[in-house]
Amino acid sequence: MSLLYALDLIGTAAFAASGAWAGIRRDMDLFGVMVLGLVTAIGGGTLRDLLLGDTPPFCLQDEIYLYIAIGVSLATFFLHRRMDLLRHPLLYFDAVGLGTFVVIGTEKALQFETGALSSVLLGVMTATAGGMIRDMLANQVPLILRKEVYASACLAGGVLLVALHHIAAPRPVALLCSAGLVILVRLLAIRFDWALPKAGSR
Amino acid sequence: MSLLYALDLIGTAAFAASGAWAGIRRDMDLFGVMVLGLVTAIGGGTLRDLLLGDTPPFCLQDEIYLYIAIGVSLATFFLHRRMDLLRHPLLYFDAVGLGTFVVIGTEKALQFETGALSSVLLGVMTATAGGMIRDMLANQVPLILRKEVYASACLAGGVLLVALHHIAAPRPVALLCSAGLVILVRLLAIRFDWALPKAGSR
Amino acid sequence: MSLLYALDLIGTAAFAASGAWAGIRRDMDLFGVMVLGLVTAIGGGTLRDLLLGDTPPFCLQDEIYLYIAIGVSLATFFLHRRMDLLRHPLLYFDAVGLGTFVVIGTEKALQFETGALSSVLLGVMTATAGGMIRDMLANQVPLILRKEVYASACLAGGVLLVALHHIAAPRPVALLCSAGLVILVRLLAIRFDWALPKAGSR
Repeated sequence: MSLLYALDLIGTAAFAASGAWAGIRRDMDLFGVMVLGLVTAIGGGTLRDLLLGDTPPFCLQDEIYLYIAIGVSLATFFLHRRMDLLRHPLLYFDAVGLGTFVVIGTEKALQFETGALSSVLLGVMTATAGGMIRDMLANQVPLILRKEVYASACLAGGVLLVALHHIAAPRPVALLCSAGLVILVRLLAIRFDWALPKAGSR
Repeated sequence: MSLLYALDLIGTAAFAASGAWAGIRRDMDLFGVMVLGLVTAIGGGTLRDLLLGDTPPFCLQDEIYLYIAIGVSLATFFLHRRMDLLRHPLLYFDAVGLGTFVVIGTEKALQFETGALSSVLLGVMTATAGGMIRDMLANQVPLILRKEVYASACLAGGVLLVALHHIAAPRPVALLCSAGLVILVRLLAIRFDWALPKAGSR
Repeated sequence: MSLLYALDLIGTAAFAASGAWAGIRRDMDLFGVMVLGLVTAIGGGTLRDLLLGDTPPFCLQDEIYLYIAIGVSLATFFLHRRMDLLRHPLLYFDAVGLGTFVVIGTEKALQFETGALSSVLLGVMTATAGGMIRDMLANQVPLILRKEVYASACLAGGVLLVALHHIAAPRPVALLCSAGLVILVRLLAIRFDWALPKAGSR
């Protein structure tokens, strides 16, 4: 399914750019920016493959992911002053990446015949773990754990895909609808500034 | 051995509650609280299974662990104001989890025929790594690295189990004695406020 | 190749000492110091083996690494006041460890037939990931991401080894030259206080 592959590469580039940005903002040097870009782009999928026992992980089997992540990180490092123009489009690419990663992760888990809950969790993890490792490396509480609907969008898409899988919906339809749902919820969340409830422990 | 399984589920619930609490205290949203509960409950055993090459890890093969961890995290999130009543009992459940996790981890390592030191370390890791990842996600130096005898209790239990294994003690006796030792040391440590020495580098 | 094995053990000891130091400086107790020493010494190689699917990882197959890492951590904990004498030599041992770890990691990746870029990255990771996990556990932005040429030295050695592998240079020559390059760049960097460029985002 080459559309999904193209979307996956776009998402990889967008995630790498967000990781590299985080490194630049934390005053890291060239190596640090590359590590953060790389980890953000491939961390989630790599962790998923380790858990499924599918080693070496996807990015060591198809190095295009590594080249894109490192190339984009380098470009972000050297051109970041001019990248303000890209900030708005990047949000859209990031949403595309989010939807694609959830769908690819959930789908792969289903193929490995993990249970329904596991499949959803592995899909969400594919899309979110890279950003969490990025934030841990940058010595911050991961943004996604505090302020974002980011994760709910992923959950919705993963649940939808597992449901469509169980009613045996045609695969391309299931993948497109699920990825579309993630992207839609994510963009609406940005547009209307949605947030999840907090326990209000203070 | 169904007693061990029951203790394991109790420990999973107790660890999930402690993780969820940490998330609530750090002002995380619902998703963050779930992630912290889940990671605390299953992180150690998952890492052990990855190192032993036994993939997918236990929690993807028996989803009851995931359901318990997520269910308890949700309950903690919504009911945490009323859970003060549970704080004291939770310490006991937590000690039970600690002992059970050490014993299960060490036992599994022995079955995979890792060496004596490796088996002890994998047992200790099963019981402690989840809490370390929780603290890294919450952007804190893991509590266990600074102030607790927590780890010594685990070490004692792991060493005892490996020793009993080498003298071919009956398996149920070995498991019960080792888990009991961890729980006992842990409860005594709480009771008498024990602490490990520090190097005093200041 | 027993020279490489000897260098590997020296590197393991040096890395364990640096990890234990970090724990002492952060006021950790005995257990914390041991965990930091252990993770720094074996973290990179363990992560590499997980990614290559070679489980259990090297340190569970040859426990000498565990004994050295724990022994050195204990020694550092109890003798750290007298270890100022060792601080200067430790920098050299650390450089030896760096070179050896890069070469062993890259070489192992090549044997598993990963691509050229993957092999370099896995080599660099073998030498640097342990220190990154150490810094994350100590709740700091990993030093290597901010201030060090450390990583460039590793990259240079990894690239050289992959290049020599592709032109089919004799294996001992390739390994020695690559390790030597890492050690040389590292020592020159310390001597002349080199640093990588930053993006200067402020």
